[in-house]
Amino acid sequence: MIERAILNNLQLTEIQKAKSEAPMILVQKYGGTSVGTPERIKAVARRIIASKEAHPHLVVVVSAMGDATDELIALANQITLQPDLREYDAVISTGENISAALLSMAIIAQGTRAISLTGNQAGIKTESIYSRAKIVHVDPTRIFNELKSNKVVIVTGFQGINSEEDVTTIGRGGSDTSAVVLAAALGAEECEIYTDVDGVYTTDPRLVPSAKKLKEISYEEMLELASLGAKVLHPRSVECAKENGIVIHVRSSFNQDEGTRVKEVTSMEVNRPVTGIALNEEQATVSILKVPDKPGVAAKIFSKLAEAHINVDMIVQSIEENQINNITFTVARDDLEMTKTLTNQIAKDLEAEGIKWNDFIAKLSIVGVGMISKPGIAARMFRVLGENNVNIEFISTSEIKISCVVNRKDAQRALEALHREFNLDA
Amino acid sequence: MIERAILNNLQLTEIQKAKSEAPMILVQKYGGTSVGTPERIKAVARRIIASKEAHPHLVVVVSAMGDATDELIALANQITLQPDLREYDAVISTGENISAALLSMAIIAQGTRAISLTGNQAGIKTESIYSRAKIVHVDPTRIFNELKSNKVVIVTGFQGINSEEDVTTIGRGGSDTSAVVLAAALGAEECEIYTDVDGVYTTDPRLVPSAKKLKEISYEEMLELASLGAKVLHPRSVECAKENGIVIHVRSSFNQDEGTRVKEVTSMEVNRPVTGIALNEEQATVSILKVPDKPGVAAKIFSKLAEAHINVDMIVQSIEENQINNITFTVARDDLEMTKTLTNQIAKDLEAEGIKWNDFIAKLSIVGVGMISKPGIAARMFRVLGENNVNIEFISTSEIKISCVVNRKDAQRALEALHREFNLDA
Repeated sequence: MIERAILNNLQLTEIQKAKSEAPMILVQKYGGTSVGTPERIKAVARRIIASKEAHPHLVVVVSAMGDATDELIALANQITLQPDLREYDAVISTGENISAALLSMAIIAQGTRAISLTGNQAGIKTESIYSRAKIVHVDPTRIFNELKSNKVVIVTGFQGINSEEDVTTIGRGGSDTSAVVLAAALGAEECEIYTDVDGVYTTDPRLVPSAKKLKEISYEEMLELASLGAKVLHPRSVECAKENGIVIHVRSSFNQDEGTRVKEVTSMEVNRPVTGIALNEEQATVSILKVPDKPGVAAKIFSKLAEAHINVDMIVQSIEENQINNITFTVARDDLEMTKTLTNQIAKDLEAEGIKWNDFIAKLSIVGVGMISKPGIAARMFRVLGENNVNIEFISTSEIKISCVVNRKDAQRALEALHREFNLDA
Repeated sequence: MIERAILNNLQLTEIQKAKSEAPMILVQKYGGTSVGTPERIKAVARRIIASKEAHPHLVVVVSAMGDATDELIALANQITLQPDLREYDAVISTGENISAALLSMAIIAQGTRAISLTGNQAGIKTESIYSRAKIVHVDPTRIFNELKSNKVVIVTGFQGINSEEDVTTIGRGGSDTSAVVLAAALGAEECEIYTDVDGVYTTDPRLVPSAKKLKEISYEEMLELASLGAKVLHPRSVECAKENGIVIHVRSSFNQDEGTRVKEVTSMEVNRPVTGIALNEEQATVSILKVPDKPGVAAKIFSKLAEAHINVDMIVQSIEENQINNITFTVARDDLEMTKTLTNQIAKDLEAEGIKWNDFIAKLSIVGVGMISKPGIAARMFRVLGENNVNIEFISTSEIKISCVVNRKDAQRALEALHREFNLDA
C-alpha cells in the first residue's frame, strides 16, 4: 500500500526517468477555505502562476470549495440516512471535480497552461472499499505527460478509482493525504499544504496570543498534535509523509510567509523538551465502575465500541480493590449518547456496578520528542497544574506526549501556565 | 455517427445477444424538474421501481437537479467569461453525476438494486470537441452486465467521454438525446421522456385552454414543433429518434397518464391537415433594404451571421424593382443587437440602402403532415388571419409547415382563431 510503503519498482523507474529529464516536481495542496469563492480561486491561480516561475513542474491538489462537501452530504442525507456507499462517494466526490476544473480554468484565463485531472485521470488507484478507501497505487503516466506539455496539473483531492473503475473517496481530510501520496509517487521535492493558518504553533494562538510559529516539527510530534486536535494537518497525511520521507510545508494561502516544515528532525536540533501543547475540548469521559477483573474484559468493552465505529482515545484502568477495576476512557462528545447506551449494556454483561460520565472536560497534551531524553517533564507538568489549582482527572502518556484530562473551566488557565512553563513563548 | 446512422455491426451483435437472452429494455429519461428536490427524487425512485415490474430491464437517463446546471454555468462565469471548454465541461457535467447517484441511492434505499453510471462508465463516446460534442458510439458492455445483475441502471444525461478520456458535454437539452441514443444502442423497445407537461398538445394549453393532447405525432411534425418553440423535446433528440426508428413516449412524471408517442405515422392515420400550432414570441425581424441583386449576396450576409453564431430562422427575399431586392430574416431577440451591428456593416459593403428591424413580432406556425395531400391549407390560414384583422408581415413555408410573422399584439387572437379553424379543440 503506497500510503504506508516504499514505491514499487515500476514507479521508481518512471520517477528516475522523469527526474533525469526534467526539473523537480513541487506538489501544492489548497484547502477548501483557500478556494472558497470564485475570487479566492482567482487569487490561488495567481499564486500558482507565480510559483511556476521557480517550479516549472507543478502539481496542485485541491479540496472542494468551502462547505461544498458538507452540502453534498446534507443532500445525500435528505435521500437516505443509510446511503449505498458507492453512490454516496459518487455524490460527495463531485465537489473536487468542480473546484479543480474552476482552478484550472482560472489559470488558463490568466494565460498559463493548465489541466484539471480527476482521481481517475490522475491514476490514483484505491482499495475497492467506499467512503474511506486507502490509496494503493498511483500511475503517474498522464501527470508526467501533461507536465511535459508545460501545463500546471490540477488534481482533485479526496478521490480515486477502484479496480471496478468506480469513484471512491478516501475519508474526510483526505485531500492532505492525496497531496502527500502524489508527492511520493511523483518523487516531488516537497509537498506544500496551503491552509487558512500560516503554520504550526506552539499552541492555538487564538487561545494563547504569545504562541509562536514553529519553523519545523518532527513527523512524530505533528502526528501527536494532529491527532490531539491541532486541526492543521490530517494525521493520516503526516503518517504517509513519514513513511515516504516527504517534507510537508504547511503555510497560508493568504500571505507569502514561510510556514512550518514537517520533517525528520535529528536529535541535534532538539533543544526544547516540549514542542507544542494541544487543547481538546470536544471529548467526554466514560467510566465503568467496579468491573470484576477477568481476562478479556477490556477486549469485550472496546471491541463492542469499535463495532459501532466509536473512536476511543485515552484509556485508563485503575485498581479499585482486589480483583475489581475501574475502567475510564474518552470519546468524542458527539459519540457520548451512543457510548452510554452501549456501555450500560456492557456493564450489565460484565456484572459491573454501573457507569458514570463527564462531558465538561478538557484534554491538555504536551508534545515533544525532546522529552524522551529529558526525564521529569511529566512531573513538571503535574506540578504546574497543581500550583494553578487545576485538578487532574486522569493521565495518559506516550513516549513523546503527556495528556491530562481536567475540568473544562480550568483549561484556559492551565494552557497558559504550561505554555509559560515550557518557554514556548520565547 | 450514431446520432444519425445505423448502429455498427459489433453493437448489433451485442444487442441480438442481449435480446435473445433477456427481456426487452425500456429507456426512461427524467428531466431537471422531475428530480428538482430530494422529495421528487424519492418520488421518481418509486415510479422507477413500479416500472421495473413490467420492464425488468430498465435504463434511466437523468438530467441535473432543477437549476443545477445554470448555477454551475454562473459559477464558471464568475471565473471567466471565456472559459477553457474542456474545464467548462468538467464543471457543468457534475450536475448529472449528483442527480444520477442520488436517484440510484433513493432506489437502493427503497429496496431495489440499482447503480449509477457516468457517461464514461456507460460507454458513451463522443467527438473530441467540447461543450457541444456529438455522440459517435456507445459501448453497452457495462450497462448489459449491470442489467444482468438485476440492477436498474441510472445513466447521467448530457455527458460523454472523448478519445482523450476527458469528459465532454453534448449541448443544452442534451439529456433527451442521451436517452434516445442509448435506446438505439441498447435496442430498447421505447424511450419514455418524462417532463413537467403530460404530452404534446395541439398548441400551448396555457394560451388556448381548449388545446388537446395528441395521442401520437410524427417525427417530422414534432421536429417542426420542437424547433418552433414547443419546448417539449429537444429537436436533436427527435432527429436522432427518427434516424434510428425509436418511439419516444413523452409523458409527465407527476401523473400516470399516457402521454404522446412520437413515431413514424403512416398516411392512413392522418385525418387532419394540421396537427398543431406553435407560437414563438422570442424573435425579431431584420431587413436589409434595396440590396443590389448580384450572385453571392445572400451567402455574404448569412455566412457573416453564422460566423458570429447567430442562428437565422425564416429568410424571405422580395424583389423591390429590377435588380434590387429586400432581404428579411428572423433571429432570436437576444441576438438582435449583435445582428444589427453586423447587418449594418454588411449593408454598407453591399451598397444597400440601409436596414430596419422589428422586435415586437410573433411567429405563428401551423404544422401537419396532412397538409402535403390537402392543398389550400395556406390559403385557409391567410383567410382566417385576414378575417380577424391580423396583418401578415411575412410568410415562410415548408412541406409540412406554414409560418406567418404578425404583430405581437395580434398573436393571441390569431392563435385562437387558427386553433378553431383547424378543429384542434375537437
